[in-house]
Amino acid sequence: MAKYTIGIDFGTLSGRAVLVDIKNGNELFSSVYTYPHSVMDRKLPSGRELPPEYALQHPRDYIEVITNTVPELLKGSKVDAGDIIGIGIDFTACTVLPVMKEGTPLCMVEGFEEEPHAYVKLWKHHAAQKYADIINSRAEERKESWLRNYGGKISSEWYFPKLMEIYCEAKEIYDSFDLFVEAADWVVWQLTGKLSRNYCTAGYKAIWSKEDGFPGVDYLESLAPGFSSSLEKLEGELMPLGGRAGMLSREMADRLGLSAETAVAVANVDAHVTMPALGIAEAGKMLAIMGTSTCHILMGKEKKTVPGMCGVVEEGVMPGFYGYEAGQSCVGDHFDWVVKNCVPPEYYDEAKKLDMGIHEYLRSTVEKQRPGESGLIALDWWNGNRSVLVDVDLSGLILGMTLRTRPEEIYRALIEATAFGTRKIIETFEENGVPVKEFYASGGISQKDPMTMQIYADVIRRPVKIAGSTHGPALGSAIFGAVAAGKEKGGYSNIFEAAKAMGKVKDVVYIPKEENSRIYDKLYNEYSALHDFFGRGGNDVMKRLKKIRDEGERK
Amino acid sequence: MAKYTIGIDFGTLSGRAVLVDIKNGNELFSSVYTYPHSVMDRKLPSGRELPPEYALQHPRDYIEVITNTVPELLKGSKVDAGDIIGIGIDFTACTVLPVMKEGTPLCMVEGFEEEPHAYVKLWKHHAAQKYADIINSRAEERKESWLRNYGGKISSEWYFPKLMEIYCEAKEIYDSFDLFVEAADWVVWQLTGKLSRNYCTAGYKAIWSKEDGFPGVDYLESLAPGFSSSLEKLEGELMPLGGRAGMLSREMADRLGLSAETAVAVANVDAHVTMPALGIAEAGKMLAIMGTSTCHILMGKEKKTVPGMCGVVEEGVMPGFYGYEAGQSCVGDHFDWVVKNCVPPEYYDEAKKLDMGIHEYLRSTVEKQRPGESGLIALDWWNGNRSVLVDVDLSGLILGMTLRTRPEEIYRALIEATAFGTRKIIETFEENGVPVKEFYASGGISQKDPMTMQIYADVIRRPVKIAGSTHGPALGSAIFGAVAAGKEKGGYSNIFEAAKAMGKVKDVVYIPKEENSRIYDKLYNEYSALHDFFGRGGNDVMKRLKKIRDEGERK
Repeated sequence: MAKYTIGIDFGTLSGRAVLVDIKNGNELFSSVYTYPHSVMDRKLPSGRELPPEYALQHPRDYIEVITNTVPELLKGSKVDAGDIIGIGIDFTACTVLPVMKEGTPLCMVEGFEEEPHAYVKLWKHHAAQKYADIINSRAEERKESWLRNYGGKISSEWYFPKLMEIYCEAKEIYDSFDLFVEAADWVVWQLTGKLSRNYCTAGYKAIWSKEDGFPGVDYLESLAPGFSSSLEKLEGELMPLGGRAGMLSREMADRLGLSAETAVAVANVDAHVTMPALGIAEAGKMLAIMGTSTCHILMGKEKKTVPGMCGVVEEGVMPGFYGYEAGQSCVGDHFDWVVKNCVPPEYYDEAKKLDMGIHEYLRSTVEKQRPGESGLIALDWWNGNRSVLVDVDLSGLILGMTLRTRPEEIYRALIEATAFGTRKIIETFEENGVPVKEFYASGGISQKDPMTMQIYADVIRRPVKIAGSTHGPALGSAIFGAVAAGKEKGGYSNIFEAAKAMGKVKDVVYIPKEENSRIYDKLYNEYSALHDFFGRGGNDVMKRLKKIRDEGERK
Repeated sequence: MAKYTIGIDFGTLSGRAVLVDIKNGNELFSSVYTYPHSVMDRKLPSGRELPPEYALQHPRDYIEVITNTVPELLKGSKVDAGDIIGIGIDFTACTVLPVMKEGTPLCMVEGFEEEPHAYVKLWKHHAAQKYADIINSRAEERKESWLRNYGGKISSEWYFPKLMEIYCEAKEIYDSFDLFVEAADWVVWQLTGKLSRNYCTAGYKAIWSKEDGFPGVDYLESLAPGFSSSLEKLEGELMPLGGRAGMLSREMADRLGLSAETAVAVANVDAHVTMPALGIAEAGKMLAIMGTSTCHILMGKEKKTVPGMCGVVEEGVMPGFYGYEAGQSCVGDHFDWVVKNCVPPEYYDEAKKLDMGIHEYLRSTVEKQRPGESGLIALDWWNGNRSVLVDVDLSGLILGMTLRTRPEEIYRALIEATAFGTRKIIETFEENGVPVKEFYASGGISQKDPMTMQIYADVIRRPVKIAGSTHGPALGSAIFGAVAAGKEKGGYSNIFEAAKAMGKVKDVVYIPKEENSRIYDKLYNEYSALHDFFGRGGNDVMKRLKKIRDEGERK
């Protein structure tokens, strides 16, 4: 008898659910539901205006994703609800909300609808930078041991900056809610009726580790007197990935048309959950999730301090391993920048004539270039550098222009620069004792851009394997759902077995071409020299230029 | 009684003649004649194909300029030929041709029409690079004292590389002509019937100096055995600028409808001849002739060695002074590059809607930016660096890009970079004992682009005065014509008097704005650091990238 699980991936603008055959991971049906409130970055539903850098969401939208997509899956696939043995979910992170003890979001409590701080703070809510600055500088002063787990700096997007923002800017709101919960955990709570906190968001976003727990009372008090009360808002059982958070509540089962015998997996994060979707369940295999930016996930057997990573979390990806995360804050965004700013009308005309999109047309011309042909080299820092320099104040560079330089050459130089950036991350892991034996890619670029994938293979001198599913995170969640169900229900006894059976990569593998790699080795040496010169204090011109710019703006 | 002179400026594609009132330099009439053979860079008139990097002209075109424009001036101005007391001409340089003893160009001798080496080699004929390399390396080995007069390197565009090209590649042609003459001097010869060689082209292009003459026999023999014979092809009286080459020959006077009492000035070069057209006739006033590239002319009272100048020639600009030349090999070409490569369709649409040209529209958006606002800085080396680094293998750089960077910001960064390049040249002169007290600009950019002129004033912290005539070189030639006529004919006794009376600048002067200059001082410091780092061996990445590019091309 075939068994199935459901994976639901909560993205920035919508949620996608897939129904998957657990034997082989094949997708039977998928359904997308767009959040009615989308991202609230200008106004609340009432029309109340929001300050700059805000990005809020409405938690009701997440429930609507579930209640709309799951019945669709049942209807579309004609699978019997009794054969669906598990559900897994994954979420953007840190996307976090204040709730009451029994789970009601503060924004849904009467009297708080008008209060911005009562809503979900989406990952890209950037109004908490000054609290992140305090958190980082105090941690540095006090030599908090956890700081090196996060490359020496935590992000304003994470848990404590967002909570401290409420504490410092709206104490009465802070006092009005009981818990501050990752949306991932909150959704699982709504499914099971029981609060749990997953290792992944706790570790990567809330400065928690299996070894040391959360930051200490003294440190939190040093941030703001009384802020150690934040620990109370972190209540809830911490649960490892691959575990079962609970069974679907009777009420939710009825609402969705599923069985109350359906297991619900511990929540997860969209990037990290994708690993098993490619069949990755061991150390040394790096997954790059490539889109506007790139997130790198890698597991290692030992805990190492790697400069400039975003985080290392014990069991943060799978049990028994240290999960490492690194990132490039600008990848596809570079290519969009070229298209928006550096492509003259005749290119658009030509693309139209050939019935191609502009990216497609540009790539068709880029493809004809040999490595090194343009004489250009770039630093891929249009949006700062996340790994390994962890410096948002760095900016972009192109070098080697002549009067013959064409837009498609700039386009290619930027592709190459992002590949060099990935090589830099790989080498940094390896130099610090975390081997990177294989390289996998998922996300939009991996699916749509073979040329870029070939350049990556040539630059990093490793074959590049590509995700077999275009819905990697949702498939990953479905895989964790099959583990949550467990062997006794017809699922899998652990994530390693499940990943092996259900994960998939494409048949095509991008193999490095030696003649290209030889040239790219030379170009990478140039990249490295510029990277270190401008990124490690040789010449801090990028920072000074931003300072001059900002001084002008303040006048 | 009013007296008049004619100035004729021989450009790359056409010749322009103006008839000028010598009292005040006012232009009565002007006439342009386009060379029928234009630039021959692909084929000879017979259809014979030319090798790459060739750029030839036909000397008959120059005579047609004279015989067509001068009668037009007479007709258009209704001035009596008897009141025209002098003619001056200027030319592109080094534009040079092989001729017979009596002046017939070799290409017009029967049997040589099919021979590329028999034609005029235009300034931008670039096929003699390998001979320039030999000339430079031998001079360096032998520590030839003249080398430092040319910033340590002579250009492939100059006299000896072009002559050596014929000697080494077509010895039988070399043996078939008697003299190798600057087109400037050849045209004067055709006007007067007598060969003279002007100090300006001899000094700046043919390695001649008043002190040391031409290069020595030993040196020339070291280049190629027998090549000291080139000195014989240099016969002709060397004549100082501001002198009279002779009177118009009876035959030419009849042909043009002028009096045989018309004095003909010693020939000159288009950039250098422009100085008096702005009334400049003293040391310390730098003139920048700004177009696709920029040429800087400056006079000093003493001979100094200034690193990276194009040349210092005693009396190379005016009698009694050392003439200094420097240059930026890419100025307006940068802005054209942006327009051709980095401006998306909506900018063209918007320009059209506003009934503006694309440059004009871009400048209207650039104008709104504050200095430093973009956070960008560039190195203006899209076509290498002429002064002060003298290095064609350098290439362009832009630094500071973010996802918010717009094309108009790149456009402005390049304008600023060329201004920083000019400041670098000014400072290098001053640091080496050649004062630059005032700054003047002529050429297309100076006339059409007030915003750029203001940026230059702000960057160099000097008022910028602008040429009063849009036909600067032709006016300059007419001024030299008035000096050639001399006081006794109603002209001037020297170039200083003539320049004062006939030269002109516009009423508008661009005055530095202190608040901008303060920001530009900071940006110039950044420019200087990058300039020295990439231009003086800190990181030779630009050269290595070109090498990688060229290695790929050879495969």
